[in-house]
Amino acid sequence: MSDEKSFHMTPEDFRRHGHAAVDWIADYYKRIETFPVLSQAAPGQIRAALPAHAPAKGEPFDAMLADVEKLILPGITHWQSPNFYAYFPCNASGAAILGDLLSSGLGVQGMLWATSPACTELESHVLDWLVEMMGLPQKFSSSSTGGGVIQDTASSSSLCALLAARERATNFASNRRGCDGKLAAYTSTQAHSSIEKGALIAGLGRENLRTIAVDPSFAMRADELARRIAEDRGAGLTPCFVCATVGTTSSNAIDPVPEIGRICRENKIWLHVDAAMSGTAGLCQEFRQFFDGLGLADSYCFNPHKWMFTNFDCDCFYVADRKGLIQTLSVLPEYLRNKATESGAVFDYRDWQIPLGRRFRALKLWFVIRHYGVEGLQHHVRQHVALAQEFAGWVKKDDRFEIAAPVPFNLVCFRHRGGDEANQTIMDRLNRSGDLYLTHTRLNDRLTLRLCVGQTNTQERHVKKAWERIQEEAGRVG
Amino acid sequence: MSDEKSFHMTPEDFRRHGHAAVDWIADYYKRIETFPVLSQAAPGQIRAALPAHAPAKGEPFDAMLADVEKLILPGITHWQSPNFYAYFPCNASGAAILGDLLSSGLGVQGMLWATSPACTELESHVLDWLVEMMGLPQKFSSSSTGGGVIQDTASSSSLCALLAARERATNFASNRRGCDGKLAAYTSTQAHSSIEKGALIAGLGRENLRTIAVDPSFAMRADELARRIAEDRGAGLTPCFVCATVGTTSSNAIDPVPEIGRICRENKIWLHVDAAMSGTAGLCQEFRQFFDGLGLADSYCFNPHKWMFTNFDCDCFYVADRKGLIQTLSVLPEYLRNKATESGAVFDYRDWQIPLGRRFRALKLWFVIRHYGVEGLQHHVRQHVALAQEFAGWVKKDDRFEIAAPVPFNLVCFRHRGGDEANQTIMDRLNRSGDLYLTHTRLNDRLTLRLCVGQTNTQERHVKKAWERIQEEAGRVG
Repeated sequence: MSDEKSFHMTPEDFRRHGHAAVDWIADYYKRIETFPVLSQAAPGQIRAALPAHAPAKGEPFDAMLADVEKLILPGITHWQSPNFYAYFPCNASGAAILGDLLSSGLGVQGMLWATSPACTELESHVLDWLVEMMGLPQKFSSSSTGGGVIQDTASSSSLCALLAARERATNFASNRRGCDGKLAAYTSTQAHSSIEKGALIAGLGRENLRTIAVDPSFAMRADELARRIAEDRGAGLTPCFVCATVGTTSSNAIDPVPEIGRICRENKIWLHVDAAMSGTAGLCQEFRQFFDGLGLADSYCFNPHKWMFTNFDCDCFYVADRKGLIQTLSVLPEYLRNKATESGAVFDYRDWQIPLGRRFRALKLWFVIRHYGVEGLQHHVRQHVALAQEFAGWVKKDDRFEIAAPVPFNLVCFRHRGGDEANQTIMDRLNRSGDLYLTHTRLNDRLTLRLCVGQTNTQERHVKKAWERIQEEAGRVG
Repeated sequence: MSDEKSFHMTPEDFRRHGHAAVDWIADYYKRIETFPVLSQAAPGQIRAALPAHAPAKGEPFDAMLADVEKLILPGITHWQSPNFYAYFPCNASGAAILGDLLSSGLGVQGMLWATSPACTELESHVLDWLVEMMGLPQKFSSSSTGGGVIQDTASSSSLCALLAARERATNFASNRRGCDGKLAAYTSTQAHSSIEKGALIAGLGRENLRTIAVDPSFAMRADELARRIAEDRGAGLTPCFVCATVGTTSSNAIDPVPEIGRICRENKIWLHVDAAMSGTAGLCQEFRQFFDGLGLADSYCFNPHKWMFTNFDCDCFYVADRKGLIQTLSVLPEYLRNKATESGAVFDYRDWQIPLGRRFRALKLWFVIRHYGVEGLQHHVRQHVALAQEFAGWVKKDDRFEIAAPVPFNLVCFRHRGGDEANQTIMDRLNRSGDLYLTHTRLNDRLTLRLCVGQTNTQERHVKKAWERIQEEAGRVG
């Protein structure tokens, strides 16, 4: 065994290739506006260009980088293009990318405090910073009874919240004996699909998730919620979980959290508030009003990977009572036992999430907050909201169009008055042109276009051009 | 709105800071052996050095990089140190780190095929490559009825498998109406804690997960499995899921998959095979025998982020029947509808996993396979196994120690004959010294040390030094 033959990249080769990769990314951002935003690839096209078999022998790094350019780029939908207005954004920034690079380089797995104390402690710390930065209730701070943790996505946060709610309602009997089909959960008809998915996964069943009717602003009707809860109680069910949304995916509707919260308190129901995209607006005092009632929530989440310049994945999940969450999710095998855990003086974040392993994601979030400072983050959030409001103003002034929902933040829902087909045609033509990318929803059963201003580099000139292109396509549908 | 003030990093600044970050990582690997492997930080120590409040104004990148060195490194447990032998490895490589960097830079979110066709197609393609590279059953290939997908961890794969099993057994009634406490699942007493966690999450309940007794090699007893299944059927329960393990976390035990598979077939039970770490050994023909019976499995997973030089997170999950998985996990809201999805010609990987959003993880896996080639991967896996076998040989020759379990791959379970206290003392002293890091398990109710050779840069000199240090500490306990 004296064979020290190695196929690994040496540190010096890593340095050289790493510089090339960084250069490639820097150049990518310089030319990003030259690509069609929505990939124009046909199904199977990207695979067809790839070799059928894995290479027997290693290949040079330069060949791989060249293939990213040649084989991969045509299949990329450019989420980081300033002309990306689809879905909700998934914005990134230089600071985040480099923070994440350091995380990959350190390569720690932070399942337990002991497996890298900095991974856990920086995460608790930065999530506490955000409590203060956003004026969140103090109970969500790690110095209180609660605390924050980074999840991959809001879907996972909702699922964790639902599980903790399920166990609180059944005094942990569901964990022991399984679900019994008697638990009910509630969200609005406009809530994110992950709530329904969570209800399936957690064994409650789709039919036990009540989708509550909304008011004309697409916000949950609290009176309907109260009625459905009473109805379920009367039928012998146990209402255990309500998910309210601040900024729905469909139209950015804002559920009346204070009223919903009071109903949940009266009925001892877990309230989770999902502000996946809009939560970032809480950085600015003028938007804090939309987060009223969070003091009544048992859990809360928002995604820095959507609108806070932190590359995917990074969802911040807060609970008011960490003990309940941990008791729900903790399973401790012998091979994970260690002194720090047994001392009770540390958090082991594996007990706050579905998977066991975890990446050092706090590093990129820390870099983002430090790079921008509170001031920089506020500036860009305000800028995005102002651009969306300006766009909404243009839409209002054009008789061919109408605004389809309130515009509290950075999402504008609008439609051409010519009906579904006209809107579909406009959207398809715009997206096929590659000039911009926007997506749709249905509101009041009518096809509605969504334009969300949240990509890091979107400036006024981009939004202006988007509106010009929309007007142009509107002209073509008559 | 002509304000184009920006706090963003320009591409040129990104280039400069990116080079510095790459240099820092290159240098980190050059001096990695100078750090204590297990962080010596006390609880709260890392946080105490961080400012109590987020900065109001942005800070220079150099300050952040300097703080990684000064504030974060003392709290790092060096998973990438060649002297890391704890748990299972979470190894990384230059190719993976740079592939992941490009993924961060592109910043795509691949929830749907349409949101970046290359993200989906490269993933299907590389996972098909691995089917061939590892001699996995053809049914796991995307050209067949099944296919592969990248999950964050094996925990999530097990959960997805369990959910699909649950729905197959109930004809999707659990998804509709919730669980009823009548489903039973099975795994060995030695299986990973994530199976128990999955049973809680999925609403089956801890008491409905049967932990099957093991034989002297810590492998599941197939006769016991058959007996428990029959017993449960007799009691009116529905057995729906068996998780067999190839290479348990505790001792690398190998469950008898062919026999278990036959029992599952006879009883129409979903068989999931978890080879989280050991799966990588399937790259080499001489280890394929340990994977016999996979043809009987409904799903399978292994983690390139453990032993295949691909930085966390990257778990490859395969199913034989993708339709069943998709039907279990798909919820389609209007705002995600698109032509490609409706054409049926593409995979939307959001329907293969718990979260909605997903990162472009195939890029790093592609880079790893291309950088090493099949030959390079095989070389290093063989090298690690050979080093572990050599270590086991040294242990056997020292009368103070005994081998505690078979050593099929790269994990050696051993113990000092002096009893639990002696072993605990040896382990604590070694870990406190910072010279190496190893962890423990309990086998036959005796504290057992685990030494797993799988860190990318571990060479013979490291393992030799580890054994010398172990012998030294053994000398001190008498």
